Amino acid sequence: MTRATPPTGSVRANVKGRQTRERLLEAALRSFATAGFHGTSTRDLASAAGMSPAAVYAYYGTKEELLFEISLSGHTEVLELVSTTIDAAHSSVDGIAAVVREFVAWHARFRTQARVVQYEMAALTNDHREAITGIRRETQRLVRDLIAEGVASGDFHVDNANLTALALLSLGIDVARWYRPDGAWSPEDVGENYSAIALRMVGWGQVTPQG
Amino acid sequence: MTRATPPTGSVRANVKGRQTRERLLEAALRSFATAGFHGTSTRDLASAAGMSPAAVYAYYGTKEELLFEISLSGHTEVLELVSTTIDAAHSSVDGIAAVVREFVAWHARFRTQARVVQYEMAALTNDHREAITGIRRETQRLVRDLIAEGVASGDFHVDNANLTALALLSLGIDVARWYRPDGAWSPEDVGENYSAIALRMVGWGQVTPQG
Repeated sequence: MTRATPPTGSVRANVKGRQTRERLLEAALRSFATAGFHGTSTRDLASAAGMSPAAVYAYYGTKEELLFEISLSGHTEVLELVSTTIDAAHSSVDGIAAVVREFVAWHARFRTQARVVQYEMAALTNDHREAITGIRRETQRLVRDLIAEGVASGDFHVDNANLTALALLSLGIDVARWYRPDGAWSPEDVGENYSAIALRMVGWGQVTPQG
Repeated sequence: MTRATPPTGSVRANVKGRQTRERLLEAALRSFATAGFHGTSTRDLASAAGMSPAAVYAYYGTKEELLFEISLSGHTEVLELVSTTIDAAHSSVDGIAAVVREFVAWHARFRTQARVVQYEMAALTNDHREAITGIRRETQRLVRDLIAEGVASGDFHVDNANLTALALLSLGIDVARWYRPDGAWSPEDVGENYSAIALRMVGWGQVTPQG
């Protein structure tokens, strides 16, 4: 089925609208990162985006909707990253190594977005928080299933696949807190190092003294 | 040397002052956890503590001083916990297991304080942030030195003691984010599980396929 081409004027208006939304989202991310969600007023957002408060309301009904959109895009991106990385892996060993490498590097690279998203979860409405929690749960499930697959194949040895999945994800999430771009390690360095640590955590081919 | 006993009236005033400060700190912790540091006004703090704004100013010059005191007491407590746990350990293996167990359980138990302290680091003045960073660095150094000790004795095998120390601490820090008291695990359960994972991370007595 072919769709009718909208008149040129409307295309331009759409592009302009998208650009304005993006400018507003970027301004919101910067403001939330600096002053916190509760410490940022719609007036602050408008001024950071070079818009009037009324114009902000025309794009987003509330400040919380902006936070939700930032959180949703971050979480969706991470779920897709985890999902495609696992799909591309040839084994559960490759999969865990690659997932942790990518997940950790992402949190170092996009630490500002990651911090806002993690630290302001409580500011979301119940419906929005549930939507985000659903995406997080799905990401965690993919990692847990990959661990379980490695356990079934005899590659991994873990006591509790759920807690181990949580621990692997914690490594990446907390990187957003401490990572400094002017430090000794690139996002890829941290990803590579943590990837090796992750294989130990899932007990890859290891014999532990505990048996 | 014996010190003169202060007159009774002054003792009472001191006790009352200490109680008021504590009430104020508790109210600040609750308010910062709910509305964020930037989203909490001195008026909010005063009303949460059942005091007048002027009375709040009599105890703390600024809202930031309250945040600093919450942060300082949390960080000092954790440093002491880590330090005494390591001192009591009979080996680096016991030490890592015990430190991670205690550090993780602490962050599950005191998750509200831990979250405020972690999420609002940027709101501290430069001097205060440096003081806190110094304590964090000392905690990290103790863990890193313990890992290095285990490497020297042949108990542990790690590529990078610094990054491994960071990774161990990340596990505990991130527990404050996800831990729910109504979930399946007690703080001690998580501490115990993560303690076993930590021994894998430092390569205790393990032969890895990478050699």
